[in-house]
Amino acid sequence: MMNEGSVKIIPLGGLGEIGKNITAIEYKDEIIVIDCGISFPDEDMHGVDLVIPDITYLLNNENKVKGIFITHGHEDHIGSLPYILKQLNVPLYGTKLTLGIVENKLKEHSILSECQLNVVEAGDIVELENLKVEFIRNTHSIADSCAIAIHTPVGVILHTGDFKVDYTPIDGLVMDLERISALGKEGVLLLMADSTNVERPGHSISERVIGETLTRIFSKAEGRVIVATFASNIHRMQQIVDASVKYKRKIAFSGRSMEEISEVAMNLGYLHIPDGYIISVDEINRYSNDQITIITTGSQGEAMAGLARIAFSNHRKIKIEPKDLFLISASPIPGNEKLISRVINELFRKGAEVVYDDLEEVHVSGHAYQEEIKLIHTLAHPKFFMPVHGEYRHLKHHANLAIKLGMNSNNVFTLETGQVLEVSNKEAKITGKVTTGSVYVDGLGVGDVGNIVLRDRKHLAEDGMLTIVVTLERESYSIIAGPDIITRGFIYAKESEALIEEVKEIVRKELNKCLDNRIIEWYVLKSNMKKSVEKFLYEKTKRRPIILPIIMEI
Amino acid sequence: MMNEGSVKIIPLGGLGEIGKNITAIEYKDEIIVIDCGISFPDEDMHGVDLVIPDITYLLNNENKVKGIFITHGHEDHIGSLPYILKQLNVPLYGTKLTLGIVENKLKEHSILSECQLNVVEAGDIVELENLKVEFIRNTHSIADSCAIAIHTPVGVILHTGDFKVDYTPIDGLVMDLERISALGKEGVLLLMADSTNVERPGHSISERVIGETLTRIFSKAEGRVIVATFASNIHRMQQIVDASVKYKRKIAFSGRSMEEISEVAMNLGYLHIPDGYIISVDEINRYSNDQITIITTGSQGEAMAGLARIAFSNHRKIKIEPKDLFLISASPIPGNEKLISRVINELFRKGAEVVYDDLEEVHVSGHAYQEEIKLIHTLAHPKFFMPVHGEYRHLKHHANLAIKLGMNSNNVFTLETGQVLEVSNKEAKITGKVTTGSVYVDGLGVGDVGNIVLRDRKHLAEDGMLTIVVTLERESYSIIAGPDIITRGFIYAKESEALIEEVKEIVRKELNKCLDNRIIEWYVLKSNMKKSVEKFLYEKTKRRPIILPIIMEI
Repeated sequence: MMNEGSVKIIPLGGLGEIGKNITAIEYKDEIIVIDCGISFPDEDMHGVDLVIPDITYLLNNENKVKGIFITHGHEDHIGSLPYILKQLNVPLYGTKLTLGIVENKLKEHSILSECQLNVVEAGDIVELENLKVEFIRNTHSIADSCAIAIHTPVGVILHTGDFKVDYTPIDGLVMDLERISALGKEGVLLLMADSTNVERPGHSISERVIGETLTRIFSKAEGRVIVATFASNIHRMQQIVDASVKYKRKIAFSGRSMEEISEVAMNLGYLHIPDGYIISVDEINRYSNDQITIITTGSQGEAMAGLARIAFSNHRKIKIEPKDLFLISASPIPGNEKLISRVINELFRKGAEVVYDDLEEVHVSGHAYQEEIKLIHTLAHPKFFMPVHGEYRHLKHHANLAIKLGMNSNNVFTLETGQVLEVSNKEAKITGKVTTGSVYVDGLGVGDVGNIVLRDRKHLAEDGMLTIVVTLERESYSIIAGPDIITRGFIYAKESEALIEEVKEIVRKELNKCLDNRIIEWYVLKSNMKKSVEKFLYEKTKRRPIILPIIMEI
Repeated sequence: MMNEGSVKIIPLGGLGEIGKNITAIEYKDEIIVIDCGISFPDEDMHGVDLVIPDITYLLNNENKVKGIFITHGHEDHIGSLPYILKQLNVPLYGTKLTLGIVENKLKEHSILSECQLNVVEAGDIVELENLKVEFIRNTHSIADSCAIAIHTPVGVILHTGDFKVDYTPIDGLVMDLERISALGKEGVLLLMADSTNVERPGHSISERVIGETLTRIFSKAEGRVIVATFASNIHRMQQIVDASVKYKRKIAFSGRSMEEISEVAMNLGYLHIPDGYIISVDEINRYSNDQITIITTGSQGEAMAGLARIAFSNHRKIKIEPKDLFLISASPIPGNEKLISRVINELFRKGAEVVYDDLEEVHVSGHAYQEEIKLIHTLAHPKFFMPVHGEYRHLKHHANLAIKLGMNSNNVFTLETGQVLEVSNKEAKITGKVTTGSVYVDGLGVGDVGNIVLRDRKHLAEDGMLTIVVTLERESYSIIAGPDIITRGFIYAKESEALIEEVKEIVRKELNKCLDNRIIEWYVLKSNMKKSVEKFLYEKTKRRPIILPIIMEI
């Protein structure tokens, strides 16, 4: 099938997982990349700071890659750029706010000057040799967000990006449903659409509703109002600002990402704050408490971010005061529930008031619910459909939804990261698989921590470790020093002296058995010591610490 | 105040935390204990299997303790009994099913024969010297659950236990609201009530509603139905059995706790299964798939439990087959969301159908919502109130709710674990604090893992470890062997040979500096080596592995 007349869709991340969104679209000798995100480490990825995609496929096809097209400025769509651009320096395309945020990141990694940033507007079309890439305005929990239509000789591929259908967005810029409808009329070959909230019936709530809640809450607040939210949610920020201005409160931003993104948003005209209303955190004590709003990071309960620092009295500049009202204007990302609850409990303990999602409408989702998703399918009525953005359960439900809307199930493709969907104007087919995967970033290291290191960390975390050191003299086949035993994370050594003595005895016995037989191969000695000690400790404690036998030879 | 005429309420666990419920009630030389539960370890308690309360206070007052009174058979109310009874062997009181479940636990710990189990029925009163302890039927997500009223010379203390108000419970045994109303009329001195769901408006849904969902789902199922739920939820089990019998499906229990508790429940008459309907998991292949229901553990996504084993093809006896329908009849306990999602994704990937709480009403909570809580307050109209069972945010909201219902805020006491509330018939007051805390159980060890061990495990988990070993000769102040470097969980050693060589060089330099100056105090050598290596590694990698310097001396 499909030689001349086909286009390849190659998800390099983001399918069957939350985050790390990156998709290659390949036609002849052109590849364009949509988004370039990170994902956050799972609990069992001990010590890993973030996860970036393996882009071997792009590096192997370096000459083909014409650019990276960014739908919006969230971490799971832009976060890998500093790492990927270091390996593959291609032009970037995105809207003003999106690239404004990207710029900050590239500056931080000291690579901005080498990068090629091209600002586009919603409605713009970037023309490559065979491919035309069109940015189409959508609505999402960050301003200046877009869907992308790729016009190929085979047909139009419409990628929704992350979206919701908000008919009353804060900036008044409604999703360009007309354009999607027009594309649908001309014929969409393949739709790729956001699956995040496909399990939720109905329609998402407009961002504007939050403004009403905020106004009500601000109208009653007697002390400071301290709001934790996502730094990238400029519309949310604007509404907090509006409520503050209405009640004559000065506004201080706290937390690095909050300060940075609010500044970018103001400079670029996405966040409007009347003169004299912004103050720095250092200035808050110059005003009475009922004249202050603080907007801070840490809405996910992160131990090192603003909110948790304030709660646990670790913040250098902000201490809890009587009548402080905390608003957590966010919902927990799955996995963060306990962290957030810990912070809420502490704020209550310290006597503050706390309002959060379980109690009031202080957060709405940025992703389309079922009825919105149905709208997009209906307007685009594509020939082929491929659900994107979501865990497997979401992709699967989205596929089912498309079939319920009347699509032939043979035209619906639930891919996983790395699979290649090849689409001609007649048919579509999964035709292969490319190298993909996760690269771990830990501190300064990119990719130097892998599964073996993580397996050891997990093992160390569970049961700790026990080191056995002994110095042998080869000549005399005798123990010169040791055995010494050092443990960490295993057991209270002082209270377990008897146990440690028994371990030493076992080691001595094993060693002498070998030495008496003139065996001095390290691997035999070590493996015998290790096995005996392991067995003994498991019987005594039902624990399996990592055992490190070290033999010094003189 | 209050000498002769006061009673002390001493929560030893369960306040400001979820689980580990245990409360001492002391009047003169009598102490009774209500419940004796465990809590599950937080994420940062690496390797800890479970957490039990510190009962120093009870041990210090051993002669006063007259018995432990159990409200119901959930782990967070009975789980610590095997550990506590080993230290403090006092009589136990509880209903038939509750003690049936306890019996199994005590058997497993080989202490059943030494324990004193006293079966009571709802309505019974246990008379001690000064105290009378009355069991009052309530409704909860386990059968045979009770509230407890303690009649003291000072007045009546009513402890709701975990409860909801289910007007249509599966066993037909409605909560004894009449008795609570009668106590309220006579006068309740202190109410202690369940706060778990105080943030939820309205009224919880009756367990019976699940039966309707199950019947509908079973009526359409074409293959096996595999239900994961809490082993202790006998009513849920009964409804799954009823739906199975209706559609002529044999029932197999899978998972140790599921097998054990279903057997106890059948033997004691709490679970009714018609003859011939129970089969063992070994027999499932003798029937066609549409004649099979499997009830399994693992509804929280636990890696080692039934459901996850089936999903990831690790179950010895149950493999996924076409048209299998999985029901997850539970909601995630906070913190388990990602684990469950992982299992759901895998089941979908393997082609199974999966129904869960987000999609259908296959689970209801066992704890009272706001309107039910208000009912109990209104019936009991106590003089004093103390919220129990919940994190601080729940206690705080429950206190507010009591005040909104008309209580004087001076009569409402939000305690934390360890605080002592002293109540006379005139007043109540927090009068002190006793020793409390968490004791960690890890494998066979009880209390041998504490904060230092956990701190090391956390550190090891984050960045791994690096051991430096060197053998010195004291006489000649020289290095005889080493330095050797061994790492685990830090970095891929093979790819970092250059880094390791640099570490060795730093160690040599530090050692020689000391040795040249004739310094051979171990602590100086070690501390210098450690500091230099730490600094070097942090600069190079931004990681801080645990560094273990070991010096052997000959």
